[in-house]
Amino acid sequence: MIGIFDSGVGGMTVARAIEQRLPDYRTVYFGDLARSPYGSKSEETIIAYARQNTEFLLAQGAKVIVIACNTAASVASEILTREFAVPIFEVISPAVDKAVAASRSGAIGVIGTRATVRSGIYEKKITGQNPQCRVVSQACPLLVPLVEEGWFNKRETKMILRRYLHPIRLKNVDTLVLGCTHYPLLKNLIQPRIGKRVTVIDSAEAVAAGLAKFLEENPEVEASLSHEGENLYYVSDITEAAADIAKRVFGRPIDLQKISGETFC
Amino acid sequence: MIGIFDSGVGGMTVARAIEQRLPDYRTVYFGDLARSPYGSKSEETIIAYARQNTEFLLAQGAKVIVIACNTAASVASEILTREFAVPIFEVISPAVDKAVAASRSGAIGVIGTRATVRSGIYEKKITGQNPQCRVVSQACPLLVPLVEEGWFNKRETKMILRRYLHPIRLKNVDTLVLGCTHYPLLKNLIQPRIGKRVTVIDSAEAVAAGLAKFLEENPEVEASLSHEGENLYYVSDITEAAADIAKRVFGRPIDLQKISGETFC
Repeated sequence: MIGIFDSGVGGMTVARAIEQRLPDYRTVYFGDLARSPYGSKSEETIIAYARQNTEFLLAQGAKVIVIACNTAASVASEILTREFAVPIFEVISPAVDKAVAASRSGAIGVIGTRATVRSGIYEKKITGQNPQCRVVSQACPLLVPLVEEGWFNKRETKMILRRYLHPIRLKNVDTLVLGCTHYPLLKNLIQPRIGKRVTVIDSAEAVAAGLAKFLEENPEVEASLSHEGENLYYVSDITEAAADIAKRVFGRPIDLQKISGETFC
Repeated sequence: MIGIFDSGVGGMTVARAIEQRLPDYRTVYFGDLARSPYGSKSEETIIAYARQNTEFLLAQGAKVIVIACNTAASVASEILTREFAVPIFEVISPAVDKAVAASRSGAIGVIGTRATVRSGIYEKKITGQNPQCRVVSQACPLLVPLVEEGWFNKRETKMILRRYLHPIRLKNVDTLVLGCTHYPLLKNLIQPRIGKRVTVIDSAEAVAAGLAKFLEENPEVEASLSHEGENLYYVSDITEAAADIAKRVFGRPIDLQKISGETFC
């Protein structure tokens, strides 16, 4: 199975892209809603959670892991890659590739959680690919709660977006990376507020495309993935918002299964 | 020691009131920031967390426990009272007493998290005291993130408050209970938006007064409390906002100590 995890429901945008791109493979999703959100927590805590989530997915039979959470990817992807024997994919590198390819001016904006922005991972990866690029980052900690509340069309959401995007607009970026898997759900509000000439990048499809390419090139991994049964969606807590967002993302009701046990409590 | 816990930093408003009322007793605070917030999580998860937090405080030497979190109090206080041998205090009953005493019309508003409002605990306790009372409740899930971001004076915070308070205003309440320990930090914004003739009730001082009375009446418990050493402030994660809010609440820098271990990760 293809294992996908996130702190909560944002990573479902990535799961959906993988399901659409690779419909013949079974996926197992885990959303850590009992400890969500990760974005304002410390590195140490986020790493511990990412490790436990990976162990859970491997125990379900995952043969590849997709970290569908920018916060976890930004602080834990190297550690997970080192500690676990399976291929680990994350949402940052594909978005960086797309952004560097898309930008003509080299001025690239990045929005994400506090932890993602603090990690400096986008700057590092973008300027690693092209030292001419200039990166402007902005932490947007209220966007995740606004998405989880379903405030997609509220005036306050638009005002808060304008406030967060203002410093990036001032830097005349031509490309904006949505550095959090919740943000594609706000894309329709972000595009007009950052400017219609700015290319807005989300990583979901790029992650799916990268994974498809990897499986073509690595037949022994491909052969280990199951084609039978249903896709599974686990969460560590069932919250009121979760089912609504799952339905919104997948366009159909999703059967969320709550796992229990000491680790996730 | 007097043990006080909350999902995060909101309960510090209660801890401060207890320190001011009972300065001769040592307190130990625990804020579960690694798993914060609790307000939109399920009952089952909140109960499990409340139990672990209580066990942690007892292990530190607490002889009484104060649940300084409306969400945890609303779903877990009866269970904790049944399971643990020490006296358990919570923030709901004292606020209910104050609200019932303050209201002349019997129309009482309550604002809180999703879990607190869903529990119906305020309606139950208020109408249990006075069946003539009418209670209007409103879940305000975005207020905790706004407080934790320190958005105390932003236009968006005022707009969101107005939106949340509007249905309560329509019911002509004369009393409003702040049913979340974060909300006293927004009291200056809430009072003008609910109307200056409405009595706004927060439970921090009432909890401290109730605890003081209990200790006078129960000398054997009083005698078990220590007077030596420093007050302690533990958290399960150190976040950027935590130290700022602690300083804002206590009016001095607070030495937050991060605990580790499997339970809280």
